[in-house]
Amino acid sequence: MSRPAGLSGFPEWTPAQQLVEEQVLAVLRRTFELHGFSPLTTRAVEPMSVLSSKGEVDKEVYVLRRAQSLSEADQPDDDPLALHFDLTVPFARYVVERAGSLQFPFRRYQIQKVWRGERPQEGRYREFVQADIDVVDRDSLSLHHEVEMPVVMAEVFEQLTALGLPRMTIRVNNRKLAEGFFRGLGLDDPVAVLRAVDKLGKIGPDGVRRELVAAGATDAQVDSCLALAAISTTGDGFVEQVRALGVTHDLLDVGLAELAAVVSAPGAEGLVADLSIARGLDYYTGTVFETFMEGFEASGSVCSGGRYDELASDSRSTYPGVGISFGLSRALGLLFGHGLTADRSVPSAVLVALTAEGDRSRAAEVARALRARGISTQVAPEPEKFGKQIRFADRRGIPFVWFCGAGGSGGDQVKDIRTGDQVDADAATWAPPPADLVPRIVTG
Amino acid sequence: MSRPAGLSGFPEWTPAQQLVEEQVLAVLRRTFELHGFSPLTTRAVEPMSVLSSKGEVDKEVYVLRRAQSLSEADQPDDDPLALHFDLTVPFARYVVERAGSLQFPFRRYQIQKVWRGERPQEGRYREFVQADIDVVDRDSLSLHHEVEMPVVMAEVFEQLTALGLPRMTIRVNNRKLAEGFFRGLGLDDPVAVLRAVDKLGKIGPDGVRRELVAAGATDAQVDSCLALAAISTTGDGFVEQVRALGVTHDLLDVGLAELAAVVSAPGAEGLVADLSIARGLDYYTGTVFETFMEGFEASGSVCSGGRYDELASDSRSTYPGVGISFGLSRALGLLFGHGLTADRSVPSAVLVALTAEGDRSRAAEVARALRARGISTQVAPEPEKFGKQIRFADRRGIPFVWFCGAGGSGGDQVKDIRTGDQVDADAATWAPPPADLVPRIVTG
Repeated sequence: MSRPAGLSGFPEWTPAQQLVEEQVLAVLRRTFELHGFSPLTTRAVEPMSVLSSKGEVDKEVYVLRRAQSLSEADQPDDDPLALHFDLTVPFARYVVERAGSLQFPFRRYQIQKVWRGERPQEGRYREFVQADIDVVDRDSLSLHHEVEMPVVMAEVFEQLTALGLPRMTIRVNNRKLAEGFFRGLGLDDPVAVLRAVDKLGKIGPDGVRRELVAAGATDAQVDSCLALAAISTTGDGFVEQVRALGVTHDLLDVGLAELAAVVSAPGAEGLVADLSIARGLDYYTGTVFETFMEGFEASGSVCSGGRYDELASDSRSTYPGVGISFGLSRALGLLFGHGLTADRSVPSAVLVALTAEGDRSRAAEVARALRARGISTQVAPEPEKFGKQIRFADRRGIPFVWFCGAGGSGGDQVKDIRTGDQVDADAATWAPPPADLVPRIVTG
Repeated sequence: MSRPAGLSGFPEWTPAQQLVEEQVLAVLRRTFELHGFSPLTTRAVEPMSVLSSKGEVDKEVYVLRRAQSLSEADQPDDDPLALHFDLTVPFARYVVERAGSLQFPFRRYQIQKVWRGERPQEGRYREFVQADIDVVDRDSLSLHHEVEMPVVMAEVFEQLTALGLPRMTIRVNNRKLAEGFFRGLGLDDPVAVLRAVDKLGKIGPDGVRRELVAAGATDAQVDSCLALAAISTTGDGFVEQVRALGVTHDLLDVGLAELAAVVSAPGAEGLVADLSIARGLDYYTGTVFETFMEGFEASGSVCSGGRYDELASDSRSTYPGVGISFGLSRALGLLFGHGLTADRSVPSAVLVALTAEGDRSRAAEVARALRARGISTQVAPEPEKFGKQIRFADRRGIPFVWFCGAGGSGGDQVKDIRTGDQVDADAATWAPPPADLVPRIVTG
């Protein structure tokens, strides 16, 4: 086999980076399950008719065909199978397909690869992992679910920051607030206004003004829109500031109350009510979320979502929901590009040294005893002199090397190869410091 | 959206079944990492040239194309991208691609979906999850790695049996043993003999005899081959039995010693040396593994693998390895088909009841306190009477319902809805019995 090159847009990590990803995944799974979200994995493929049910997506989708035939005998040519491009559409399909047997509200998390046939560019992948949580109910969905979602994600991000990832700030807005404000101002195409305001970061206030004026807004109306978008507070201080702009509308009142509920909830202390957050997609109908990573704000949101009144529907019901999606590959790709990694390339905390092949079963017994207490351990692959064993551990970042029979009266010893400290140890009781149990996330 | 139907060959589980799968995955990840295997995820696609480098596979592969174009501008038409059909080929490609920066022996586990464009039938999926471990080294690979692989998998299976899955028996053979025996008998096409013997289960001893005689073997030679294939022992008793057949060959001696080492290792007590195990694929060169699930023996092996002398090679080196692959979807699909499930459809052990919407923040605090101690908890979505709350928990299999302020002097109480027992409880200290912490795997 000749040495193949990587495929652009299909990222693969080094072993040390994979260990970082695995720790992040463990935090995501544990936190979601503690909050009662059920794990869900859907198939990777959907008929094109399902993928396109939410609008035009054809251009970014990978269609499948079997190598030996141009058509799928049991799949109609006009509705071929394609790889899903997000986790929301397959989730909606799963909910409708099983509505009769699911318990509502249905809370699920879903961590899977998705694919988009886009031209790859900085931070844009063709294959990437997303981690989604959604709550979907039948016919109506209570506001407290909108309150809950960012609290769960904030709990995830707090743990990721403790692991060594940058701080993430969830910024929240509310579509009713924005729409009510625009209508109260006398602007009657709130979606168009939202789309213009959404470009604030890209085209600046002057650009937004040009777009809005071209669409018929007065300068005074534009001033108010820009003043609204400039409001950003922790806690519910934004309510006062919006009121001070003097606009009134029933829907504005509803939106203000909903947003205040979201940012005032226990656990929501780190959230920011940011009235510039628009989210381009027009199916959101209430709370909307975006999340920015400290030091990577210019790269855009890494975790977004919101409330939608119709995730899916069938002949009898509609299924409103609220969801939030963490772009795991996107966030990690940015961080790996700036040196984030693990201090080991293997999960092992201990290498059991071997001086002669005949000692392998004794070494295996030590490894067994350590693993039984949750300590990841590997045995040296070949018998070698002590110095070589230490170099073997050092090259992989394994912090401890275990020497069978090196202690007084034939007992064992363990060496911390970072400090050189070597002490008597018993495999039935010794443990590394908790911080050395799993690889540490560092910036290399 | 109309109610879509499932896609044949693309299995999806119910929420309760997903909870079973998640527990199995947790055992796999934890055990592999305790043994120092690094997590690896490769991209789902490979150029066809990579997928076909091990032989003809075209007919079972899904090729990708972007919906909007018949060709991939940056991917040559004669080497399109396709979904991988196993985890070994992408692993080999990853190793060769990164040989310069990987540390050998490289130990990795990989749990991912794979796809095969086969006609779906009972137990044959087009999309399924495999869980592989492999150790690959540069230029040479020590025997003890062959000893180690089934011990790791046996440790996994022991835990799965403790969770409620059937017992799995790993059956082991050795290609050198078989080849040495056949050559010692005077049969000089050992691969052909192996292929015939591999059909023993399907065509019986008479069928195997017909094939071997047609290929030029004498009846006495066939008798010996069938006698060899009939040998099956725990421990190394097989060595005596093979010796008693009176065949001698140097390669037979090597194979007998290797197989004895595998089944005699600490942790290998449950393994069976089964000299009928052949494994159709002819790239195995030493130990070979198959695994049968109690009660599902007729469905074939659910976990197979072996030693290969050339996983991959580049201009400078070859990379011999040994691996074993657990067919997670296949095993679970069989068990789900026979009623295996979880006793809950949600991860939650506790439902915090709510009698009025105004009590939500107190209920949320209780949930927070329980989750902080690792107890999966959800708060009732709507305020309801006690009876309705209990029915809500019961329908999801949640064993405990928490009532804020129901106890004496305003304290809380918790009810085990299975027994009806209701006791005073403090969210800072109460915990469910350990067996109720996560869903129980049951046969429904």
